[in-house]
Amino acid sequence: MTNRLSADNWPIAAAMNGFSGVLPDGSLVQDQPADHWAATLEQVVDAGFTEFDPSDSWVRVADLSPSRLRDFMYVVKTVGLTIPAISTTRKASVIDPVNADAYLAYNHRVIDAAAEIGAKAVSFGLFGEFTEEQKRHLWFWTADGVKNPDDPATYQKAVSRIRELGKHAQELGIEVSLEMYEDTYIGTADGAVKFVNDVDVPAVGINADIGNLVRLHRPVEHWASMIDKLVPYAKYWHVKNYMRIEDPAQNLICSYPTSLALGIINYRVAIQKALAHGYKSAFLCEHYGGDSLTVCAMNRDYLRTILPR
Amino acid sequence: MTNRLSADNWPIAAAMNGFSGVLPDGSLVQDQPADHWAATLEQVVDAGFTEFDPSDSWVRVADLSPSRLRDFMYVVKTVGLTIPAISTTRKASVIDPVNADAYLAYNHRVIDAAAEIGAKAVSFGLFGEFTEEQKRHLWFWTADGVKNPDDPATYQKAVSRIRELGKHAQELGIEVSLEMYEDTYIGTADGAVKFVNDVDVPAVGINADIGNLVRLHRPVEHWASMIDKLVPYAKYWHVKNYMRIEDPAQNLICSYPTSLALGIINYRVAIQKALAHGYKSAFLCEHYGGDSLTVCAMNRDYLRTILPR
Amino acid sequence: MTNRLSADNWPIAAAMNGFSGVLPDGSLVQDQPADHWAATLEQVVDAGFTEFDPSDSWVRVADLSPSRLRDFMYVVKTVGLTIPAISTTRKASVIDPVNADAYLAYNHRVIDAAAEIGAKAVSFGLFGEFTEEQKRHLWFWTADGVKNPDDPATYQKAVSRIRELGKHAQELGIEVSLEMYEDTYIGTADGAVKFVNDVDVPAVGINADIGNLVRLHRPVEHWASMIDKLVPYAKYWHVKNYMRIEDPAQNLICSYPTSLALGIINYRVAIQKALAHGYKSAFLCEHYGGDSLTVCAMNRDYLRTILPR
Repeated sequence: MTNRLSADNWPIAAAMNGFSGVLPDGSLVQDQPADHWAATLEQVVDAGFTEFDPSDSWVRVADLSPSRLRDFMYVVKTVGLTIPAISTTRKASVIDPVNADAYLAYNHRVIDAAAEIGAKAVSFGLFGEFTEEQKRHLWFWTADGVKNPDDPATYQKAVSRIRELGKHAQELGIEVSLEMYEDTYIGTADGAVKFVNDVDVPAVGINADIGNLVRLHRPVEHWASMIDKLVPYAKYWHVKNYMRIEDPAQNLICSYPTSLALGIINYRVAIQKALAHGYKSAFLCEHYGGDSLTVCAMNRDYLRTILPR
Repeated sequence: MTNRLSADNWPIAAAMNGFSGVLPDGSLVQDQPADHWAATLEQVVDAGFTEFDPSDSWVRVADLSPSRLRDFMYVVKTVGLTIPAISTTRKASVIDPVNADAYLAYNHRVIDAAAEIGAKAVSFGLFGEFTEEQKRHLWFWTADGVKNPDDPATYQKAVSRIRELGKHAQELGIEVSLEMYEDTYIGTADGAVKFVNDVDVPAVGINADIGNLVRLHRPVEHWASMIDKLVPYAKYWHVKNYMRIEDPAQNLICSYPTSLALGIINYRVAIQKALAHGYKSAFLCEHYGGDSLTVCAMNRDYLRTILPR
Repeated sequence: MTNRLSADNWPIAAAMNGFSGVLPDGSLVQDQPADHWAATLEQVVDAGFTEFDPSDSWVRVADLSPSRLRDFMYVVKTVGLTIPAISTTRKASVIDPVNADAYLAYNHRVIDAAAEIGAKAVSFGLFGEFTEEQKRHLWFWTADGVKNPDDPATYQKAVSRIRELGKHAQELGIEVSLEMYEDTYIGTADGAVKFVNDVDVPAVGINADIGNLVRLHRPVEHWASMIDKLVPYAKYWHVKNYMRIEDPAQNLICSYPTSLALGIINYRVAIQKALAHGYKSAFLCEHYGGDSLTVCAMNRDYLRTILPR
């Protein structure tokens, strides 16, 4: 079936990062009645999507009770969507300084939930919640976030726990994609490749979300060099793009979110290289800034023009 | 009839700010023969618009003689356009240091002209002509413009005159929308809300043109916070968008005009909130930089994807 | 025939600058088997182009052997493309400090090749290969490139050689368009106009590629002022656009590549002015940054909306 993938039917999911998980009255989308979920998901459908990723900043499907999960999936099916993958976000690191054990257990539940709802992939990361400084900034990537410690024991703990999760996922036919994020063990192309090789489970690969890196207002490796290193390991992929200006004479480095076509990463080339290495996972369209859903829809349309006919 | 408004027929006007009111030979568009007006308006029609706002920087319809106004409206009708609203620009402030009385009289004529040509709204502002420094800059928003004085008497004069205009407009079934613009009494969300409450005429509301603010190379309130304050008062709305980069570490704040979807203001959210408060006025697409008309057309198409079906 | 040009059939070529002339294994596209050329050109066709310019950074058609050129043109025809013009790039300046004579001979061969394959124009420039500093920068326009010497003898040599080429081209019914590029004799509007007048051959005009200039992180003449000077001389035109931010208060000048519609140059106005001067050459869509081919395709579609019906 995977060899039937083509531009028309390749799973391209909308991220829910344009929709807050916290409602204006302070209550959580997690606790909304099902028809409110439907109202939000209908916007996703109206934007032309047939797939979405609940992104656990919006709804933590793995933490829904069995009956609520049934309600959720009923809504998803009714509006006409499917879920190719579940991404975890800022409350899920298996080496979180405070909640590491709870998050490890949560990640196992995410894998089980993925299997139950028919998703084929999960995305895990080692990044944490926003710092107070990040919350104060207009764009969170202009301030430092939580950093993984330069400590062999913690590194080894991360490897072991991701290996454990990877084996669990592999048994259920689920792939684990590790999201690249600055200042984590998966925060550079070389670091991500080393980490995945240290984990050494075939079901575990890299979520080559180098948009997370090219937006940093500090020196970063050229996108093309990173892609060459990453494509042999690429799995479920968060795609987004940024303009990036560098001018040493002005001591200037800055970035701004834009569409996949207009940003610095050439996704035509990046995806062609991944396909040449057998990439056959879904894509997730993410975007920060402005109308995220609309830009994700543009990006989905763009991807369909560069995927194989 | 207003409750029949939907994505397909919501009035979305092109601004004429991409077309200079002064011709290469120094003569004014105001004085052009009617067929020259037609040639320009045909470009607007070719870009897919069914509505436009003459924007008084292009043609001051309120200052056309009766026979010239008939010619103008004949051209407008012949090319297939309607005019949902008339916006005044830089020569219209009712507290202008030099021409306040003349501009007050002009604004009354604008209201009368709006009624005569079937427009439903006018946009008034308290900003002035460009300073010499603004004219020298590539982008006028990188230099300070004329500021409203911090003086209770002038503030009160502005309130009284806008109230007088508002009552005139209200009698004719026209709404008055006050354009947000930095360093005027309507230059912040809080200031605009206070001003409109001080005016206290139901026909008078706010033109939530916060694109004018998010483009400033200085600290500004977050767009989402402004929108929450403004939507209860929103009337005829100039929509445009900007990228906005802030980086305290580099002491950097800068902006650049972009499409509604790609800029920092999430118009999906902003407009949904306004609709929830009963917004039913027209929109005006404006854009500075590059091919204004083409970007306005993109923005119109975008608006139709997020307005109610 | 030229008076039948309209939006639908105006030749608008894709540049090949999104495709490297050097393959990952270090070999040259110049030496590829014909079916590999076809694979690349099929992407150009899939992007909706009917014309392309081989851009000598991709393939130097004038240096193909007769049989290889036949192969090349067979591929071009088979995929459904035509070549309205041939642009030379960084290894072609007739006043190159080292290879001036060889490049002059090459330029003559380019003219002959153009005539042979049915192209109507060639683009020549006086710029050189990237400096080491340019190669180290993320964007080459943030470092100085090779500069033409401030030396009357070299200037005169450039004029004479371009005149010689222009006469050769003119005999074959080919136009020569001189590409504007900073720090060359054709590096400002005034300089380009003077140079073309000094050359004084009707077949020789200006490639008004002012995208090359508005992207510079230094003061440049306003695009509108340059266009007014250039349009009487405009021939085969490389069109691309950039955002450009200037803020004297922050001592900031920066740029970023964007689509024709969103960048600082208003191509609607620029092209209308050129058409009024009788412009009837092809356009070349170029773009740096991200997925060049996709942005070129957007730009082609945009051009067709502003060309005469």
